[in-house]
Amino acid sequence: MRDVSIIGVGQLPVAEHWETSLRRLAFQAVQAALDDAGLPRERIEIVYVGNMLAERLSHQAHLGALLSDFIGVRGIEALRIEAADASGGAALRMGYLAVASGMVDVALVLGVEKVTDVVGSARLAAMSVTADADYETIQGATPAALAALLMARYMHEYELDLSAFAGFSVNAHANGALNPNAMYRNRIKAEKFPTAPVVSAPVNLFDAAPEGDGAAAILLAPTEAARDSVAKPVRIAGSAMATDTLAVHDRPEPLFLAAANISAGRAYDQAGARPTDIALFELHDSFTILAALALEACGFAEQGQGWKMAGNAISLTGRLPIATFGGLKARGHPFGATGIYQAVEVALQLRGEAGDNQVPNARIGMAQNLGGMGGTAVTHIFELVE
Amino acid sequence: MRDVSIIGVGQLPVAEHWETSLRRLAFQAVQAALDDAGLPRERIEIVYVGNMLAERLSHQAHLGALLSDFIGVRGIEALRIEAADASGGAALRMGYLAVASGMVDVALVLGVEKVTDVVGSARLAAMSVTADADYETIQGATPAALAALLMARYMHEYELDLSAFAGFSVNAHANGALNPNAMYRNRIKAEKFPTAPVVSAPVNLFDAAPEGDGAAAILLAPTEAARDSVAKPVRIAGSAMATDTLAVHDRPEPLFLAAANISAGRAYDQAGARPTDIALFELHDSFTILAALALEACGFAEQGQGWKMAGNAISLTGRLPIATFGGLKARGHPFGATGIYQAVEVALQLRGEAGDNQVPNARIGMAQNLGGMGGTAVTHIFELVE
Repeated sequence: MRDVSIIGVGQLPVAEHWETSLRRLAFQAVQAALDDAGLPRERIEIVYVGNMLAERLSHQAHLGALLSDFIGVRGIEALRIEAADASGGAALRMGYLAVASGMVDVALVLGVEKVTDVVGSARLAAMSVTADADYETIQGATPAALAALLMARYMHEYELDLSAFAGFSVNAHANGALNPNAMYRNRIKAEKFPTAPVVSAPVNLFDAAPEGDGAAAILLAPTEAARDSVAKPVRIAGSAMATDTLAVHDRPEPLFLAAANISAGRAYDQAGARPTDIALFELHDSFTILAALALEACGFAEQGQGWKMAGNAISLTGRLPIATFGGLKARGHPFGATGIYQAVEVALQLRGEAGDNQVPNARIGMAQNLGGMGGTAVTHIFELVE
Repeated sequence: MRDVSIIGVGQLPVAEHWETSLRRLAFQAVQAALDDAGLPRERIEIVYVGNMLAERLSHQAHLGALLSDFIGVRGIEALRIEAADASGGAALRMGYLAVASGMVDVALVLGVEKVTDVVGSARLAAMSVTADADYETIQGATPAALAALLMARYMHEYELDLSAFAGFSVNAHANGALNPNAMYRNRIKAEKFPTAPVVSAPVNLFDAAPEGDGAAAILLAPTEAARDSVAKPVRIAGSAMATDTLAVHDRPEPLFLAAANISAGRAYDQAGARPTDIALFELHDSFTILAALALEACGFAEQGQGWKMAGNAISLTGRLPIATFGGLKARGHPFGATGIYQAVEVALQLRGEAGDNQVPNARIGMAQNLGGMGGTAVTHIFELVE
């Protein structure tokens, strides 16, 4: 298998893009990635689209063909990858495989999601397709309700109160405030945390990431070719994916994110890296409890200790910066596009182009995209090509 | 890239499986494929699921994780592939890539669809997500209505009446009558064709394939390993995918299926084959007009001449047998699973295990799975390993 690198990245602000259609969001992100790579669109040989909800919310399947035509590469191989809100990470992994295998020399990986045109219970119902329909959703368990079960169990096991999680959101919003692409650019205070409106007790508004519209794109090429074509290729040093039960109640240890653990372990092995080598970690903080559990599953904290990192340790100058552009919580969570945003952000950090959000001297970064409550986990480790 | 072969196939009857959930359909098809291969499920390293409508009709996304758990391989890499009703063919292609690249030694490719629990306009609306939502569906153009436009144009251009298409359905039903897995096992007569109930003029009930519930599964392995493990491995000699505009009105020549043509051309090149080498062709006869156009696009007939093959030429003993187990028209069309059914059927033909549906002395077979009105086309060429 060939070594693969990111040669171009593009992203749009995560927002309520009521005035822009799904296909136009995709076009703009792809154009930005092409411009970044200095590559003509004709060089794209394959398109993998990460998307979760267009069938439900835009009445549109078949995004591979639709978007490859609209972005100006009509006719090429294209398909959609879906793994709940890990669709973007999964699409990146398939693009990696297509280039690593030698099948193509340039792959476009695209994440796009249009959520906010639909409001109220229809949106909530659509968002719930990530959980087990027959055993969870039918009982009324929304994603927030499932996160609440995990959070309550965690608080019980380790004798914590709500304030244990505040630091995750304070950090996310502090970083989001510096990022022009973030959905929420307001800072929040830990003191306000316990009185924030409840979404599904104990999950409150500060624990839950906002869904948003967005699109992000990545161009991949063999590292050898990338060295000649762009100034700062970012190689994919590790790529791995694993799954778990959808239904949280089927897991022997609900507080252990097995898929996150397995995929991170494989990515470390492939990259020849250890957790201490990781300079920053874009994790899947769709809920603060998942941030704590992901830190534990990926070897950054002992079980039951992840919450303790929710302070200086995770800031831009801390031991392990997370959510460096705001994370899902403040940058926003455009479900099927989130995994691509994470990878774009890590690439910008490693290229030293993160502006006010820059993590000093970042050489190796990691991104982990989860589906639902961790039913899917995709982990990538990135490294600047020297 | 390594040579890849089919080592196991499984399929369920296409039917109205009201009593069986989506996950149980998947389980049964996978178990049949494992039994066929004589392989323990622990050998499966990756699962690609082809599915089109579970998000709409079963309130269920995230099928990769859900089904890999339910079929007994919890934890492994798994995701869903979607390319409208070409999802099955696209999933097969990704499984081919995963094995060909050397990433895994055994891939499970699974197609599953549950359609018939939902009836009336809700089902019809869901089925329409394959077309362009902003420019076709919003005008009320269902798949049948779009096929009707193509058929009317074809009849006008070549001065034909309805009877030109009857032979496709007569053949499909004659073959379906012999197939225990077919949804419709009744023979139909050409004389009845002109008076069949109209779906969307000129498309009538005999022109349109019925949607159905179903599941089919394929196990893939490197050909070198397959020779030692199963009696009759069927190698994938060619695999290709291409796309076209979703909206039929955006195509310079609406009667030319460009994606079908491109993907077939690439598959021929890879296999070192010509149309005259193909012993049978499982094409995508969701509508009779698409059967005629696919024959033309793939080099079996000149443009405007495809309809002329709708007679003895396409029967089990004809020049180019098509729909040998009934095709989409009589075996039934379980959207995201259809591409897997097609490949299973070709494999059975090449193994000489097609029973009453056997095409004599079949050595090389082809399957082509279309999305919508040909917005996506996936073509595979198969050959018995000698």
